[in-house]
Amino acid sequence: MTIPLTPDRAGSMLGHLRESGPLVQCLTNTVVTNFTANVLLALGAAPAMTDIPTEAESFARVASGILINVGTPYQEQRSGMMKAARAAHEVRTPWVLDPVAVGTLPVRTALASRLLNQFPTAIRGNASEVMALAGLGGGGRGVDTSDTAESALPAARNLAHRYGSVVAVSGPVDLVTDGTEVVRINNGHPYLTRVTGGGCALGAVTSAFLAVDGDRLAAVAAATTVYTVAAEVAAAESSGPGSFAVAFLDTLSTIDTDMVRWRAAVA
Amino acid sequence: MTIPLTPDRAGSMLGHLRESGPLVQCLTNTVVTNFTANVLLALGAAPAMTDIPTEAESFARVASGILINVGTPYQEQRSGMMKAARAAHEVRTPWVLDPVAVGTLPVRTALASRLLNQFPTAIRGNASEVMALAGLGGGGRGVDTSDTAESALPAARNLAHRYGSVVAVSGPVDLVTDGTEVVRINNGHPYLTRVTGGGCALGAVTSAFLAVDGDRLAAVAAATTVYTVAAEVAAAESSGPGSFAVAFLDTLSTIDTDMVRWRAAVA
Amino acid sequence: MTIPLTPDRAGSMLGHLRESGPLVQCLTNTVVTNFTANVLLALGAAPAMTDIPTEAESFARVASGILINVGTPYQEQRSGMMKAARAAHEVRTPWVLDPVAVGTLPVRTALASRLLNQFPTAIRGNASEVMALAGLGGGGRGVDTSDTAESALPAARNLAHRYGSVVAVSGPVDLVTDGTEVVRINNGHPYLTRVTGGGCALGAVTSAFLAVDGDRLAAVAAATTVYTVAAEVAAAESSGPGSFAVAFLDTLSTIDTDMVRWRAAVA
Repeated sequence: MTIPLTPDRAGSMLGHLRESGPLVQCLTNTVVTNFTANVLLALGAAPAMTDIPTEAESFARVASGILINVGTPYQEQRSGMMKAARAAHEVRTPWVLDPVAVGTLPVRTALASRLLNQFPTAIRGNASEVMALAGLGGGGRGVDTSDTAESALPAARNLAHRYGSVVAVSGPVDLVTDGTEVVRINNGHPYLTRVTGGGCALGAVTSAFLAVDGDRLAAVAAATTVYTVAAEVAAAESSGPGSFAVAFLDTLSTIDTDMVRWRAAVA
Repeated sequence: MTIPLTPDRAGSMLGHLRESGPLVQCLTNTVVTNFTANVLLALGAAPAMTDIPTEAESFARVASGILINVGTPYQEQRSGMMKAARAAHEVRTPWVLDPVAVGTLPVRTALASRLLNQFPTAIRGNASEVMALAGLGGGGRGVDTSDTAESALPAARNLAHRYGSVVAVSGPVDLVTDGTEVVRINNGHPYLTRVTGGGCALGAVTSAFLAVDGDRLAAVAAATTVYTVAAEVAAAESSGPGSFAVAFLDTLSTIDTDMVRWRAAVA
Repeated sequence: MTIPLTPDRAGSMLGHLRESGPLVQCLTNTVVTNFTANVLLALGAAPAMTDIPTEAESFARVASGILINVGTPYQEQRSGMMKAARAAHEVRTPWVLDPVAVGTLPVRTALASRLLNQFPTAIRGNASEVMALAGLGGGGRGVDTSDTAESALPAARNLAHRYGSVVAVSGPVDLVTDGTEVVRINNGHPYLTRVTGGGCALGAVTSAFLAVDGDRLAAVAAATTVYTVAAEVAAAESSGPGSFAVAFLDTLSTIDTDMVRWRAAVA
C-alpha cells in the first residue's frame, strides 16, 4: 500500500510553494481577510482578495489557486463567488470551498449548494459544516463544532464521491479523504480555535498547496500538516492567543523541511 | 444602599461567561471585525459575524447576545441591523448599540434613531456619541471624543429613561447608568484609545456579559471592569500599541477572579 | 540647488503631525482597514473609515486628509470614492490615490481613471501600478511588483505633469517626484512586503503628512521617510513578519526626530 503523504513529501511541497510563490485569489469573509493574507505572505504565497463580480471572474482565470469562504456572504460577493467558481472549473484552476456555518444559516447554505455544482477541488470545514454540506445532519453554532472530525468521515466520503473533491475535516485530529483513502494528521494546537480565521486561513493555504502539486490528496494533506505543525511550534512559545497569532506568522515564514519531518504526525 | 457591582460579583460573572461560552452575534464595522472576534474568543465567548439581512434575523433568534455597531453602515448591513434588532427585541435577546460617530454623519445618525426604537438592552459609546444620540449637543470628530464621560451623564440618564437601556460611557473614568444608579470604573489605559476597536470590542464584550446575567446594570458594569482591568495589566508589559494589542488578548484569556478583585476600582 | 527634503525637515513634520493629530478619512480595501487605522493611531493621527456614499462626501469636507485605495472596490464604496474625491478637490482637502492592482483588473482600472480627473494631491503605488495608471505598460500580479521604482520614473513624471500630483513609487529604493524634482529614499525593509497593507498604510500616512505641510513634495517624501525608517528599526527587533507588524506599530508610536535624522537615507 502506498502512503498518500509522507512528512518528506509535505516538506518538499513546501519548498516548491516557496520557490513558485503561487498567486492565491481569496473570496473570503471580512473577519479574516487580513489574517488570511498575512498567513499566505508569511508562507511565501501571494494573496489577492479579488472578489467583486467582474474582476473575480477574470482573476480566476489567471490565479494559481482560489479560496471561496462563505463566512460573510454579501450580495455582491456571492455573485463574485459564483463567477469565480465557474471560471475556475472551466479553466481547471484548483479551488477550495470553505462552507462556514453552512447548515445553520439559510443564505450561505443555498450558496454552498450552488458552488458545489462547480466541483470544488477541495472542501475544508469542521465536522458540523461537512455533515451539513453533505446533507447529513447536524449543524453547529456558527464556526465552532461539537463533533470530532472522525464523526464526519461518512459525510466527507459522500461529498468526495459526489463532487470529485478532496475533503478536509478540521478537529483535534484532522482528516483528509478523497473518498477512498484517508489521511489523519495529529498535529496542531487548541490556540488555532482561539484565533479567528485559524480554520479559514487553512483553506487559503490549501489552495496554495493545490497550486503547486497535482496530487490533490497529498497536496491537501500537506497543507494541513505544514499548517498544524507550525501551530504546534508557535504555541510552544506563546502565552495566549494574541502572542500565538504573532508567533504563528513568524513560524510560517521560517518553517522548513526538517521541522515538518521532525514533527509531522501523519497516518 | 446596595452597591450595584462589587469586584467579587464581576469576577463571578466572568467565571459564568467562561463556563457557558455565550454566542455573540456581531454586526459591526469592517475595521474592527477581526479584533472584536479575537477579543471574544480570548475571553471565552463565541463570536459570529452574521450580518446579512436574512441571516441576521434568524441568527438573532438563537444568539446569546448581539452587538450592533454602526461604524461602517453599508446598505446591506443597515438592513441586517434593523432586522436583527427587531428580532432581538421580540425574543428578548440582549443587544448592545454602539453609536459610532453618531451626530457627525447623517446615514448612521438616522439609522441609530431607528435602532433606538427597538430598545437596546445597553448603549455603549464615548461622551460625544452618547450626547448626540440623546439629541443633547456636540458630536466629536468620528470615534474619538473631546468630552469626559461625566459630561455625558445627563444624556446617559436621558437615554436610559427613554429606552429602558443601561448606558455605558467610555472615558478615562468609565460611567455606567440605568438612569437611576451610576457606577464609575476607574481602570483602563490610554493604549485602549491607540488600538482601533478598543471601544468597539467592549460593546461585544458587554453583549457577552448581558448574556450570562440578567442584572443588566451589574452585567454592563462587570464587562467594563473586566475589560479595563485586563487593559491595565496588559499595558504594564507593553512597549507600544502594537505589543499592547497582543498582550491584551493574552490577558483576556488568563484574567481571573483574583486579578479582577485585586485591581478593580469600582465606585 | 535646494534639497526638497532634509532629515531634519522630515523630523520636524513628524512633530507637527503629532501635535495636530490630523483626521484622516480612509476609503480603503477590506483587507487592510484594521492595520491602516492602527498605523495612523500609532503615529498620532486620527483615522476615520468613512466610505459610504452620503457620508463620504460630507466627511471629505471636514477631514484633514483623505486616502482612496481601490483594493476591494465594491459598488457602494466606488460611489463613495467618487463623491469624496470630488468634494476633496472642491474644498482642497489633500487626497492620495492608491491604484492597487490597476492595469490588471478592469473595474478598478476604470475607477482609477475617473478618480484621476479629480486631481489627486498625491499618488502612491508600486512600479507596475504607476506605469499602468499612466497608461505606460505592464501591470503586475495584483499588489506585488516585478519592477524597480526607478523603472517607473517616466510614468511617475508623466502622471505628475498631467494631474499636478506628487507621485510616490514604492520599491527597495522609494522614489518621490513632482514631475521636476526627484527624491529617493533608501530606507525600509523587505518585511514591509510580507505584511499585508505594508504599502496601503503608507498611503494613509502620506495623507496625514500632506495635512500638516503645504509643501507637497516634501510632505510625501517625509511620509515615506518616517514610515520606512520605522520599518528598519522595527525589523531589527523582529523574528518574522508577525512580530515585525507588532514592532512596527510600537516604533511608529515612539519614533522621534533624532531617530529620523540618524537613520534617514534621503537623496
